[in-house]
Amino acid sequence: MKKSIAIDMDGVIADVEQQFVDWYHRDYGVLLTKEDLVGKSDDTLFPEAGLARKMVLSPNFFRTLKVMDGAVEALQKLNEKYEVYIVSAAMEFPLSLGEKLAWLNEHFPFISWRNIIFCGDKSIINTDYMIDDHLRNLDNFKGKTIMFHAFHNVSYSNHVRVNNWNEVLALFDKEA
Amino acid sequence: MKKSIAIDMDGVIADVEQQFVDWYHRDYGVLLTKEDLVGKSDDTLFPEAGLARKMVLSPNFFRTLKVMDGAVEALQKLNEKYEVYIVSAAMEFPLSLGEKLAWLNEHFPFISWRNIIFCGDKSIINTDYMIDDHLRNLDNFKGKTIMFHAFHNVSYSNHVRVNNWNEVLALFDKEA
Repeated sequence: MKKSIAIDMDGVIADVEQQFVDWYHRDYGVLLTKEDLVGKSDDTLFPEAGLARKMVLSPNFFRTLKVMDGAVEALQKLNEKYEVYIVSAAMEFPLSLGEKLAWLNEHFPFISWRNIIFCGDKSIINTDYMIDDHLRNLDNFKGKTIMFHAFHNVSYSNHVRVNNWNEVLALFDKEA
Repeated sequence: MKKSIAIDMDGVIADVEQQFVDWYHRDYGVLLTKEDLVGKSDDTLFPEAGLARKMVLSPNFFRTLKVMDGAVEALQKLNEKYEVYIVSAAMEFPLSLGEKLAWLNEHFPFISWRNIIFCGDKSIINTDYMIDDHLRNLDNFKGKTIMFHAFHNVSYSNHVRVNNWNEVLALFDKEA
């Protein structure tokens, strides 16, 4: 039986950081870089309190995210040898459900609806591997954890860290 | 730590059979009973081929389902002693996602978004118990399985069967 991988969406296959930078530029005329966001949390991301949360609650935020560099090619490759599941904590943002599914169907049409999970808490997800950027998801996971680099997780080192999808593929090459 | 229960929606807390009966009466003027459906599958439910599938793909089918008798009271009770998760194979019907979430929020407001999972295949769900009406979900489950009676599962006996929510509560009384 193929081993299974649970792969997060936001910040892992969908480039949320870039969307924050782009929308802030569009709405406030200030061009931040991804480096400016390092070490911040969703609450401290912008000088304007609550702005990041307001953005993620806006229509089209999730539908128009850029695909993370290399994610399509990497998932196609992983999908040949592993049972790949997309697991997103989408329930927090109810309006995002339809947008996220449409986004997946557009960019990752090779992922079957059978392998898509929208949830809240990820503690009941049981796969062999989990690739995620959030400590709260990785810390309670029973399988092997892989922490995808994100502005909000730079100070943590209790999971194997990958900085991009090439590093994920290199890691799985060693697992095989 | 509380033990966890994965509870299905359609046919378990949401009365899909009654909706089929009601809509068939509304659209074809023929009043079937739930007994008429016993032993049928979704494909053979009505003389008109594909009608059941056409119904579940119609707007409002999932939003207007009746709550299964006793389900609200039973889940409130179970929710006190167990970690209750609602796990629905909603991805097969993309339009149902928003309807199902709105339905849950209306009828089961005490279930947090953290405990709601919309998925395809349920094989990666890891809870202590699963209450479901579909063999394909129960057969691959690693914890204790409870098969909720439905027209399409009457001929199977490889899982503990319950006929209604009172029987579920009686079962968990014995587990405690």
